[in-house]
Amino acid sequence: MAPSLLLETVSSNGDASAIAKSIVAEATPSTTMSPESRGQGRGLLHRSFTESPYEVSSALGSYLQLSTGVSILDGCGGAAVAIIGHGNEEVMAATVAQMQKVSYVHTLSYTTSSAEDLADLILEIPPGGFQHGLEKAYFCGSGSEANDAALKLARQYFYEKGEPQRKFYVSRSQSYHGNSIASMSVSANLPRKVPYQDILMHNVSFVSPAYSYQYQRSSETEQEYVVRLIAELDAEFQRIGPENVISFIAEPVVGATSGCVAAPKGYFAGVRKLCDKYGILLHLDEIMCGMGRTGTYFAFEQEDVLPDIVTVGKGLGGGYAPVAAVLISSKVVDTLRAGSAAFNHGQTYQAHPVTCATALAVQKIVRRESLVQRCALMGMLLNQLLVDTFGGCKFVGNIRGRGLFWALEFVRDKTTKETFSPSCHFGFNVQQNAFNLGLAVYPGAGTVDGVRGDHVIIAPPFTTSVVDLGKIVTLLKEAYIQEETRLDLS
Amino acid sequence: MAPSLLLETVSSNGDASAIAKSIVAEATPSTTMSPESRGQGRGLLHRSFTESPYEVSSALGSYLQLSTGVSILDGCGGAAVAIIGHGNEEVMAATVAQMQKVSYVHTLSYTTSSAEDLADLILEIPPGGFQHGLEKAYFCGSGSEANDAALKLARQYFYEKGEPQRKFYVSRSQSYHGNSIASMSVSANLPRKVPYQDILMHNVSFVSPAYSYQYQRSSETEQEYVVRLIAELDAEFQRIGPENVISFIAEPVVGATSGCVAAPKGYFAGVRKLCDKYGILLHLDEIMCGMGRTGTYFAFEQEDVLPDIVTVGKGLGGGYAPVAAVLISSKVVDTLRAGSAAFNHGQTYQAHPVTCATALAVQKIVRRESLVQRCALMGMLLNQLLVDTFGGCKFVGNIRGRGLFWALEFVRDKTTKETFSPSCHFGFNVQQNAFNLGLAVYPGAGTVDGVRGDHVIIAPPFTTSVVDLGKIVTLLKEAYIQEETRLDLS
Repeated sequence: MAPSLLLETVSSNGDASAIAKSIVAEATPSTTMSPESRGQGRGLLHRSFTESPYEVSSALGSYLQLSTGVSILDGCGGAAVAIIGHGNEEVMAATVAQMQKVSYVHTLSYTTSSAEDLADLILEIPPGGFQHGLEKAYFCGSGSEANDAALKLARQYFYEKGEPQRKFYVSRSQSYHGNSIASMSVSANLPRKVPYQDILMHNVSFVSPAYSYQYQRSSETEQEYVVRLIAELDAEFQRIGPENVISFIAEPVVGATSGCVAAPKGYFAGVRKLCDKYGILLHLDEIMCGMGRTGTYFAFEQEDVLPDIVTVGKGLGGGYAPVAAVLISSKVVDTLRAGSAAFNHGQTYQAHPVTCATALAVQKIVRRESLVQRCALMGMLLNQLLVDTFGGCKFVGNIRGRGLFWALEFVRDKTTKETFSPSCHFGFNVQQNAFNLGLAVYPGAGTVDGVRGDHVIIAPPFTTSVVDLGKIVTLLKEAYIQEETRLDLS
Repeated sequence: MAPSLLLETVSSNGDASAIAKSIVAEATPSTTMSPESRGQGRGLLHRSFTESPYEVSSALGSYLQLSTGVSILDGCGGAAVAIIGHGNEEVMAATVAQMQKVSYVHTLSYTTSSAEDLADLILEIPPGGFQHGLEKAYFCGSGSEANDAALKLARQYFYEKGEPQRKFYVSRSQSYHGNSIASMSVSANLPRKVPYQDILMHNVSFVSPAYSYQYQRSSETEQEYVVRLIAELDAEFQRIGPENVISFIAEPVVGATSGCVAAPKGYFAGVRKLCDKYGILLHLDEIMCGMGRTGTYFAFEQEDVLPDIVTVGKGLGGGYAPVAAVLISSKVVDTLRAGSAAFNHGQTYQAHPVTCATALAVQKIVRRESLVQRCALMGMLLNQLLVDTFGGCKFVGNIRGRGLFWALEFVRDKTTKETFSPSCHFGFNVQQNAFNLGLAVYPGAGTVDGVRGDHVIIAPPFTTSVVDLGKIVTLLKEAYIQEETRLDLS
């Protein structure tokens, strides 16, 4: 070989003394971690530097066991994630079985049966089932990633279709689509955006939420409200130039940001019609509300529309694995197939064999046990329990939801719908009271406009028992009453 | 309760007929998937609509077994991911043990020992070890997510520090930081960006890569090259206004985009000095090159600099789980702690108990078996084997790398460094030949400038044997010769 080449190679091999030092350090591995080596406290970044989360030492069915010995009834499945509860043996067995075969392959050259089968299963239409028009599934690791990828996919669709001037996304206020910079750019969750406003994407605009309780005028019918919302969306498309819009993004049932808000009847049909008029793609975000959570497999089945792109997440793996998906309609697939023949996007961990195997086990259980049906039925019971229990409560302004996805919206005055002062932390206090009583619910603030409003979400596993539903509602009532009493006394 | 409230609730419960239809469909679940129900072909979105990936049915150690019966020696660990090889029983046992405890908790209220212990372990400094100055770890599901979060973290740092005018990121050409819209915005991998240019973030600019083989002038010394690169970076900071820059982002050893390119000596020290001068954060992306891959635990240990933010990924879970992390220096942590006391970012699957347990098992093995040391030693052997085997090859222009992270850069003319025509697909052909011979390597094109240039990456597990290293190099030589012969005949 040429001496110059050898020299080049050796010099590119880095700082030999650093390597030698590392070898010495490696040769004396410490087996226990001394507190000193941890720096200032433990290394995991928590959600807050001032509040420590509770350690969960085990979980089974609907119950979490804290390391302190306290047992918590999981009334919200984390963030509406745990659709089959915790500790399922079949899911564990499927996970380890996949690991015994293969845990990781690079999708540039390879595939695995777990990813293939998961895609087939979740896209399968059972006899007499809903014709969703979705043909392909792209698997990734979180809802944020799925929405981020979906934004790219929608753009590439138009790039290949010869409409590269389409650069704009339209989304809705009081929506949430994720925490990556792009998925946050199309989200309107104000508190989460505060430090980042100046670095977000510029090609996104927002229209009003479809949120009857707070925004339908007393002077208008539901139909008139829908007409007003669709007219506003049309005006926004016109402002941008409809030929410049890529997609409209919406949660069929809004999740954490305003608390289980379904749109007024006819809204999504109107949206679909308008998108079709201008050739704009309809991207429905079912990360939180999909996979059966609202009592149908897809939330949009209850809206009588077919989306072009759907994203699903939380319920897909039921929490057992971090997995999410972009589901792509034949319309979009066909354009890519006829064009560059590829979605120009890929990730090391897409279609991860193990997370797909885990999700496959979860989804097989959901089908075999008819858990979406169970969710719909138990949801009717939860609806009734909530209405019976909280209907007369003076600070519970709205009880809303679908399937096993319900929220209580708290207001200071049920007539005027005046909200509590944000400094009151009504929703968070109810959640904290509930936790102290042994119940987990999912709180939210800024319900109405990002600043005002409070709610809690109830989203138990589809496997929840009637007894547990009763417990959830009873404990939540007690938690609510504690906060009501506190306010009455203050 | 008020009748109006009941009505409101019932009307928000969606389309009852859709639910009823779903219940009927659910009640007749199909147990097998008929081809018809799959739509046009199977549902998993592959990297291409025209080429089908091979199904991997099992994997053990350094070998992948295809469903066709063919065995493949994994010479690249997927994308430099599988640091301890495939099918490790101890990792499986740790994964299932965590699942038997708890698989998912919401980090708003809860934590688990696996996430806590993983953070402590990867941040731990063994006696005599490298003082990295990193204090906290945020775990997420992919390198893209980690870099995306790191961009937000850097912005929040300045928001809290009272420098909200900082809005700009500076990155390098021929770098790759991920495929989310934001992480792609700071990447310069041109082919991956083509359809998306118009929707990317506008607040990013690029300076030249630190890539001696192609860009150091024959008239300048290594030190002069470094001075030129640092002067260019300074000029770019000045153009933007250094007080407006958030961070400089770089891979200590560039990964897939240009193939294992380490910077010239003194480059990163110069970068660090310049960043310090202007208060700009240094964000080092070690998704591909970190976690021991270059022969030291962090790649930056060989550069004599301390970064403010580090991202790690592939080697963290070794492919067994989709997991990545943002590692945060005390400097950044302290500012947040003194400010809002939280990183204003969070995800459902952050610090996922199972993926953290899996990664924890991988990292415990790495430490116990001194695998980073082994990687450094085996890397020296691989270096020598590659130089001996390919040094005299007429189309192998550069052999470069560190640890077990090596690339061959192919050129048509070793004197002029003229590249092959992109239509020649030299690198991909070598990879395809290797595959046909039973060896997986990781190919790349556009090595030099996003369009011109070819390389293949060799990145075997740290557990690789001397025999397998020999096989890798022998098979790769054969694959290369096939392509050389093809070109000579054409």
